[in-house]
Amino acid sequence: MIQVKYGRPLQAIVAITNYFTHPGRSAHPTARATDAKDDNVTRIIDITELALRDAHQSLLATRMALEDMLPACEDIDRAGYWSVECWGGATFDACIRFLNEDPWERLRTFRRLLPNSRLQMLLRGQNLLGYRHYEDTVVDRFVDKAAENGMDVFRVFDALNDVRNLQRAIAAVRRTGKHAQGTICYTVSPLHTVQGFVDMAQRLVEMGCDSICLKDMAALLKPQPAYDIVTGIKQRCGAGVRVHVHTHATTGVTLVSLMKAIEAGADCVDTAISSLSLGPGHNPTESLVEMLEGTGFEARLDKDRLRRIRDHFASVRPRYAEFMSNIHGVDTDIFDSQIPGGMISNMESQLKQQNAAHRLKEVLIEVPRVREDAGFPPLVTPSSQIVGTQAVFNVMMGRYKAMSGEFADLMLGYYGEAPGERDPEVVTLAEQQAKKPSIDCRPADLLKPEWHALRDAAIALPGSDGSDEDVLTHAMFPQVAPKFFASRSQGPKNLGKDPAAAAPAASGSAAAPASAGSAAPVRVPVAYDVTVNGRSHRITVAPVG
Amino acid sequence: MIQVKYGRPLQAIVAITNYFTHPGRSAHPTARATDAKDDNVTRIIDITELALRDAHQSLLATRMALEDMLPACEDIDRAGYWSVECWGGATFDACIRFLNEDPWERLRTFRRLLPNSRLQMLLRGQNLLGYRHYEDTVVDRFVDKAAENGMDVFRVFDALNDVRNLQRAIAAVRRTGKHAQGTICYTVSPLHTVQGFVDMAQRLVEMGCDSICLKDMAALLKPQPAYDIVTGIKQRCGAGVRVHVHTHATTGVTLVSLMKAIEAGADCVDTAISSLSLGPGHNPTESLVEMLEGTGFEARLDKDRLRRIRDHFASVRPRYAEFMSNIHGVDTDIFDSQIPGGMISNMESQLKQQNAAHRLKEVLIEVPRVREDAGFPPLVTPSSQIVGTQAVFNVMMGRYKAMSGEFADLMLGYYGEAPGERDPEVVTLAEQQAKKPSIDCRPADLLKPEWHALRDAAIALPGSDGSDEDVLTHAMFPQVAPKFFASRSQGPKNLGKDPAAAAPAASGSAAAPASAGSAAPVRVPVAYDVTVNGRSHRITVAPVG
Repeated sequence: MIQVKYGRPLQAIVAITNYFTHPGRSAHPTARATDAKDDNVTRIIDITELALRDAHQSLLATRMALEDMLPACEDIDRAGYWSVECWGGATFDACIRFLNEDPWERLRTFRRLLPNSRLQMLLRGQNLLGYRHYEDTVVDRFVDKAAENGMDVFRVFDALNDVRNLQRAIAAVRRTGKHAQGTICYTVSPLHTVQGFVDMAQRLVEMGCDSICLKDMAALLKPQPAYDIVTGIKQRCGAGVRVHVHTHATTGVTLVSLMKAIEAGADCVDTAISSLSLGPGHNPTESLVEMLEGTGFEARLDKDRLRRIRDHFASVRPRYAEFMSNIHGVDTDIFDSQIPGGMISNMESQLKQQNAAHRLKEVLIEVPRVREDAGFPPLVTPSSQIVGTQAVFNVMMGRYKAMSGEFADLMLGYYGEAPGERDPEVVTLAEQQAKKPSIDCRPADLLKPEWHALRDAAIALPGSDGSDEDVLTHAMFPQVAPKFFASRSQGPKNLGKDPAAAAPAASGSAAAPASAGSAAPVRVPVAYDVTVNGRSHRITVAPVG
Repeated sequence: MIQVKYGRPLQAIVAITNYFTHPGRSAHPTARATDAKDDNVTRIIDITELALRDAHQSLLATRMALEDMLPACEDIDRAGYWSVECWGGATFDACIRFLNEDPWERLRTFRRLLPNSRLQMLLRGQNLLGYRHYEDTVVDRFVDKAAENGMDVFRVFDALNDVRNLQRAIAAVRRTGKHAQGTICYTVSPLHTVQGFVDMAQRLVEMGCDSICLKDMAALLKPQPAYDIVTGIKQRCGAGVRVHVHTHATTGVTLVSLMKAIEAGADCVDTAISSLSLGPGHNPTESLVEMLEGTGFEARLDKDRLRRIRDHFASVRPRYAEFMSNIHGVDTDIFDSQIPGGMISNMESQLKQQNAAHRLKEVLIEVPRVREDAGFPPLVTPSSQIVGTQAVFNVMMGRYKAMSGEFADLMLGYYGEAPGERDPEVVTLAEQQAKKPSIDCRPADLLKPEWHALRDAAIALPGSDGSDEDVLTHAMFPQVAPKFFASRSQGPKNLGKDPAAAAPAASGSAAAPASAGSAAPVRVPVAYDVTVNGRSHRITVAPVG
């Protein structure tokens, strides 16, 4: 279908993507020196451009319309990037929730306008792009459809780093012949060690991943661990195993971490064009390129094209002023608190709704205790929201007097295995409150085949076109998809405004509290089932403002 | 006088500053490993905090009132910095031009409120804080008075890196027993090599400097040259020679450069507290501290105090929104154009005044040609203004058909020796137009003793208190001092405004043209004597807006 629609036969796509899976310029990974300078050999550093996905997700609340990306596509396609990240859970969600835009159509458009580029997406393992575990054949179908619509590189992660939650998606990607990238979520805790991350990399390689991504979604990755982890992976798994490093800029240290990762042998790093960079976003592409001059490493990007890409997004960005993150500078507090900025603002909202804003400090002290009780999960979507909300409950009502259904699931293994041991007393409380046992199998093993039911539900909706793509859209966002299907024919909505008309954000915002974390930029109301003394209550928590 | 005024005898100041000139924690520089990690020895990295001088100079057009700095002084004093930069040409100028504040009183106040800190200043060599060369005894008196009022560390630089222009000031500092830091202005040109910078460092050491500063005022210093130059200085001059590194953040790469400089053996780096950092300012202090964790290097600063300093300036900064630099992100164009952002906006202003804004591109092409003709001076105040204006003249009126008096002086050696050979034809033209010969001696050697004349001029002014400090103030800013003396009794003016009242700067400014360079943040009208076909015209160029 796609091929006919865009006059671009599937074979051509396959040929192109095969070509790019083995590009000449990185054809001999084993020949790479870990310290290129000593060998007088220039080692090419590959770059993944984030402008079309994580950059506007982190800086503009994922609101950028496809229309505002199109004029930059030709330059992006020819600048020399290793890949172009352009799809993921939040962008998919925002498309149908806010932009009345079909995310599959967005993908096909990128495929058409970026014919020389690897398209890359972020996939939440067994959760796909949604917020629950899906049954294995749904995972297969999603991956098939994404590949068929043009996706080349699948970066697959799990919030708990439970590799069992990655297994099926990785296998599905491999079956399509596309690039399966296994992802390690970087976090800091007494249980997270260089050794542990390297062990995980080895498991991912054994699972058949084409490359490994070290993903630092909270800007916690400092230079020394970046160096040590990449060195460890290369030593354990072999110099030929590609290592990609993804960092955010929030704490201000991660460009140094990328330098150290490169010195340790990293093959590819993620950056965003400068006009969509920094703050809770990423390190600027142009700075990465310049940084390497003379070091023996080189990112061979076309600077003139980078300038044009920059100028384009510099002109687009002010149109989204109302969605812009308040963070302009750096925030290093997270190194000590271990609590991402976006999580703090979510908890502040929850406390305010209960006229308890003054108890934030207690909550901030409670968060690490809850995290420890839960076996030190990384604090990213959805674990950050689950742990944060439970900390609020504990402060407001006493420790574990009330428990959200999600927190009980986390304690009982329904999100997967935690990095460390969960507190047995809290597990028992969770079993009592949720009235179900703890599990230690892969959570998706408990799921029954569901494709046909999902299909029946979706095609019955007004406006559904009956395609597998629509079934998947509905499966992942059942609350949002019906309205989108019904209104789809009206076409995309561009939320960008003429900067003169848009109220400019106040400057001097270094003083403003952190308000958007990279982990959850699309802040949607979250519903919790709260059980107090055996009685269940559904509570919806929505961000204020 | 000062001692009596603040009840703090000079001996005490001397005792304290002596103590801090030889603090225990950096007492054995020769014992330092250049790669601390390999030796399992933690090497302490010293930090100079820039908040009180260069940070607000670069970000808030030097407008911050002393009053807004005072509440942070106790924390700054006890945070563990090696030194606190707090005085320099632009802050001095802004005090009397905009704030009706006596800069000497500001210095004495810092001395009183920062009793445990080394106070540090930036001194323009033979230019002191002014815009011309001063006769040697004026240099001596200025240094004596600065030391007497509480200055500990004198960072002495010359825009052309002509060490003859540093000699007298360095000798004067040494005579006071204070810390004389010889400075290398970093720039990029076909003539500027690692070898050349190292040679200069050696000359500065031979001159008796207590330390060397590698000063990167335009954010051009990339990681590899940072590493190479610091390595070269340590090898040539000895590991015991302290090396300080000053960078700006504008291009986004310089925190990496600081890391590399530290790996090469740098002893101290300059940073600014995060709420007064980034953009055309500096790398954030907190990020530097965090960056070093686990590397074998450590900046022993008190994080709780850093937080309080940060919070204080975060609350102050919005009050100066109207003066805030428009640059929030990074600008890497300067690496290719070699033209600092502030210089471009100055040239734009000049072109606009002549209804020739459309000729900017020609001017940008002309700038490097003029710089080459002048022997590749670094482009910093005042050489950046001189070269930029001449490029405008060349485009508007034909190459060197008109010549500013300052450009003729530059070509004829009156600012000192240029790094490379000056174009002989242009030198001849300059001699013809300026009707004076080129020189190759130290420019100040041509000056006659002038202290008594300066003294007579100053004490005659209404409001002058007859002190040497007032004489120096008037000597350095003869156009501004008379008005300041006359109005001084009215007390300081705080230009900060309630953020609600102040018009917020438009956000999304990544799209805005660069408008403030670190080199010339106090943008004052500059007068030029322009000679066209033998007729002299005085032209004043003032910034627009």
